Amino acid sequence: MFKKNLFTRFLVAVLLIGLIVANGLTSFDGNKLFKSIEAEAAENAPKYVFYFIGDGLGAAQRQIAEYYKQEVTGDKNAKLLMNTLPVAGINTTYSADTLVTDSAAAGTALATGHKTNNGMISQKPDGTSVKSLIELAEEKGMATGIVTTTRLTHATPAVFAAHNASRNNENDIAVEFLESGVDYFAGGGNRHFVPQNWKWGKSKRTDDRNLLTEFNNKGYTVFASKDDSAAFRKYEPKMGDKVIATLAYSHLPYEIDRKQTDESPSLGEITQKGIELLSKADKGFFLMVEGGRIDHACHANDAVGSIHDTLAFDDAIAKAYEFYQKHPEETLIVVVGDHETGGMGLGFGKNYFVKVDGLKDVKASVEDVLIDKYDGDKEAYFKYIAENFGLNDLTEEEKAKIIKAMDIKDSKKEDYDLVTYGPNYYCPVAVTTTHIISERTNIQWTTYAHSATSIPMSAIGKGAENFGGYKDNTEIAKAMANLMGFELTK
Amino acid sequence: MFKKNLFTRFLVAVLLIGLIVANGLTSFDGNKLFKSIEAEAAENAPKYVFYFIGDGLGAAQRQIAEYYKQEVTGDKNAKLLMNTLPVAGINTTYSADTLVTDSAAAGTALATGHKTNNGMISQKPDGTSVKSLIELAEEKGMATGIVTTTRLTHATPAVFAAHNASRNNENDIAVEFLESGVDYFAGGGNRHFVPQNWKWGKSKRTDDRNLLTEFNNKGYTVFASKDDSAAFRKYEPKMGDKVIATLAYSHLPYEIDRKQTDESPSLGEITQKGIELLSKADKGFFLMVEGGRIDHACHANDAVGSIHDTLAFDDAIAKAYEFYQKHPEETLIVVVGDHETGGMGLGFGKNYFVKVDGLKDVKASVEDVLIDKYDGDKEAYFKYIAENFGLNDLTEEEKAKIIKAMDIKDSKKEDYDLVTYGPNYYCPVAVTTTHIISERTNIQWTTYAHSATSIPMSAIGKGAENFGGYKDNTEIAKAMANLMGFELTK
Repeated sequence: MFKKNLFTRFLVAVLLIGLIVANGLTSFDGNKLFKSIEAEAAENAPKYVFYFIGDGLGAAQRQIAEYYKQEVTGDKNAKLLMNTLPVAGINTTYSADTLVTDSAAAGTALATGHKTNNGMISQKPDGTSVKSLIELAEEKGMATGIVTTTRLTHATPAVFAAHNASRNNENDIAVEFLESGVDYFAGGGNRHFVPQNWKWGKSKRTDDRNLLTEFNNKGYTVFASKDDSAAFRKYEPKMGDKVIATLAYSHLPYEIDRKQTDESPSLGEITQKGIELLSKADKGFFLMVEGGRIDHACHANDAVGSIHDTLAFDDAIAKAYEFYQKHPEETLIVVVGDHETGGMGLGFGKNYFVKVDGLKDVKASVEDVLIDKYDGDKEAYFKYIAENFGLNDLTEEEKAKIIKAMDIKDSKKEDYDLVTYGPNYYCPVAVTTTHIISERTNIQWTTYAHSATSIPMSAIGKGAENFGGYKDNTEIAKAMANLMGFELTK
Repeated sequence: MFKKNLFTRFLVAVLLIGLIVANGLTSFDGNKLFKSIEAEAAENAPKYVFYFIGDGLGAAQRQIAEYYKQEVTGDKNAKLLMNTLPVAGINTTYSADTLVTDSAAAGTALATGHKTNNGMISQKPDGTSVKSLIELAEEKGMATGIVTTTRLTHATPAVFAAHNASRNNENDIAVEFLESGVDYFAGGGNRHFVPQNWKWGKSKRTDDRNLLTEFNNKGYTVFASKDDSAAFRKYEPKMGDKVIATLAYSHLPYEIDRKQTDESPSLGEITQKGIELLSKADKGFFLMVEGGRIDHACHANDAVGSIHDTLAFDDAIAKAYEFYQKHPEETLIVVVGDHETGGMGLGFGKNYFVKVDGLKDVKASVEDVLIDKYDGDKEAYFKYIAENFGLNDLTEEEKAKIIKAMDIKDSKKEDYDLVTYGPNYYCPVAVTTTHIISERTNIQWTTYAHSATSIPMSAIGKGAENFGGYKDNTEIAKAMANLMGFELTK
């Protein structure tokens, strides 16, 4: 023991004054010396976490949307918000059983830190369930939300609140959501929540349960279909509210189609409503937001659909960014993709240009609209794409390609060449048309499925520095758990 | 003015002791308080800088090389060294006149911080010359080096030590190198340095100058051709040495071809020799190393060629990394691409796999070897690709595709379909063959040119944190200049 003589008192005084001075001169926080490591971990954890997942969002998808934004704004320096966040990184995406992941395995990696086989929902390949970041956030007392443009029971949202050997078991996934405790669900897919003979179309359920009523009985406010869009927009969340919004029979509309009608809420709107609801509780929140139809557009080799849904995803990030600006010391925004879709190449043939101006004339999606437009009437189809897809100046060669595809469609033979005409669940005429639009832009695609390339991520806010560098998708979940003090399943 | 009474003396003592204590407890460096900003900038600057540029190196090229490494090593967790560096970022690559840059404009951006038109070598679009980082490093008294697998006068190396309205003026670029003061040149392309009727093949010069002799007269040790490979390997640099090594008539061999003979030094070897030479002077150095033939392989849609040259590039980075490990506080390694080439998609058709094992059986490049292998003798060609390209089990459909290409080649018509058979400077038979190899791997390509996608970068060492995030290629040069205290041309 030291004797508290005058000299030691003097030394202590010098030390303390020194620390105070140093504290003023540098970012050194003297208080930390006296705190436990655990307390420090909790102190480093953001209170509000946004986990944005762009399905199918590779480097090319982010880039072409940015070039399109520059074209429509006339500002050559216009950026996607996600491309301005200060931290960036690159992710690998392979699954346990193949280098080309699907969204179930990629989502499971991003949500749980575990590799699994394609098709599996937050289970290891051996079928063991593994906890998701949303489940762990709930355990820590945080409010939680799941937002998507796809069916809520689709792979990416599913992995955050369900566990199943197959992504196809969407009815079971919907039932699991009932017990999940998630405070805010918003997306599409009421067909998996409603009983037989329901007014919005045929239920996909094999039982006769009305899960939306069951959610309501558990205290959820329910917005059951597109018909509730106006009510959803007007709704003002109060403290303690829970919501499930299934605003479409299947997926929410492609952004490019939504803009034509403006009936369904946008991804930005359902994200904003989630922020309002989750922040009411003041216990912190973890909100996952999926831009799910970027992937769908790229499966259909639909460049314009991909661009509009990427811009809508960026608008949703802007809602989180506004919140971040109000709570910069407490908010983390992480933006990732789950894999690239389509092998979208921003170059074609031997040309050195990408010309996006023609894309401004496209007014509808390929998968949800164009695919049904050829009904055997060639002239009507050419008139339609002239008016709605900017193709009023087809070359003879382009026209011949489309007519050839029409003849195939008319023959009703479905064993045509996949690479030229796409899988038979697309229409050869629509695929040929979208490829012509891509080629005029000097874009081309390598696949109707996903690709194995690595993809960009970016982040801003408290703890963002943990989401830079090269990371496997499992490492993103691990970094998040580590930052938040969550214990992932071993 | 304060009077120096006892109290102020006491306060100063307390402050100083406090600073010393704080210095011990944190990374705060009290000395910095008394240094000018300029001195501080110099202190932050690394003494040894490596600027690695992978030509054509996009995310897919980095990823497929890593998957191949995992396949050949049997280690599922094997990584490219460049994919393990702690800092990562994403670059945009567009040039002043088009979204799809060439290597001249991209190199100019990376070397000078200025956007220019495709084809221009370190000049603004108006023809004004702009200084390169290598030139600025020299002005600061650093040793400098330029290393590449292409001709030394090719676009990427050229932008660091020459200024020209056109990348095609390689003879002029070679002359400009004479006055550059660069300490170490190593690459290929002696055809632009030698007089008429030279023993290594026809000089491309229009005058009769022997630049290699002129270099020698200026004090450079010259390694003039592939014949000097052994001498180059044996050579031990001494303090003050300067070297020019033009080790091939045109480009250095593709890594996959080099491995068959092992005569020419590898990119790793010429990088290592550069490190040895430049570090002798002990005045710091700036070394640019280009992996230049990744791009060439991808132009030819040659996946295996791209993989081997990417691995060779990674081996060269490993040489820098060894140096970094010896000088971790003084060394910076930055790894970038200049653009993506080929629109390489790691997915094809509607399949969810990438299978690289078949690629191990490929023994030669497409552009330098396969392209000349079909001479009208169909059986000989099939025997050759069975033995050297792993194609000993062609399906009837694959064989039919190749025979169709042979018939086109035999017909000597050069107006065939570009997308199927490639530009006419390739051979339709070789292009069809490389596409079959890609498709078996489940890879496909969108272009024989470059693409406009954003690409990865990564960094380690002193100041590496400046090379993360989303950056335009010009911002990389600006970050480097800022870190080094270089003044880029306005």
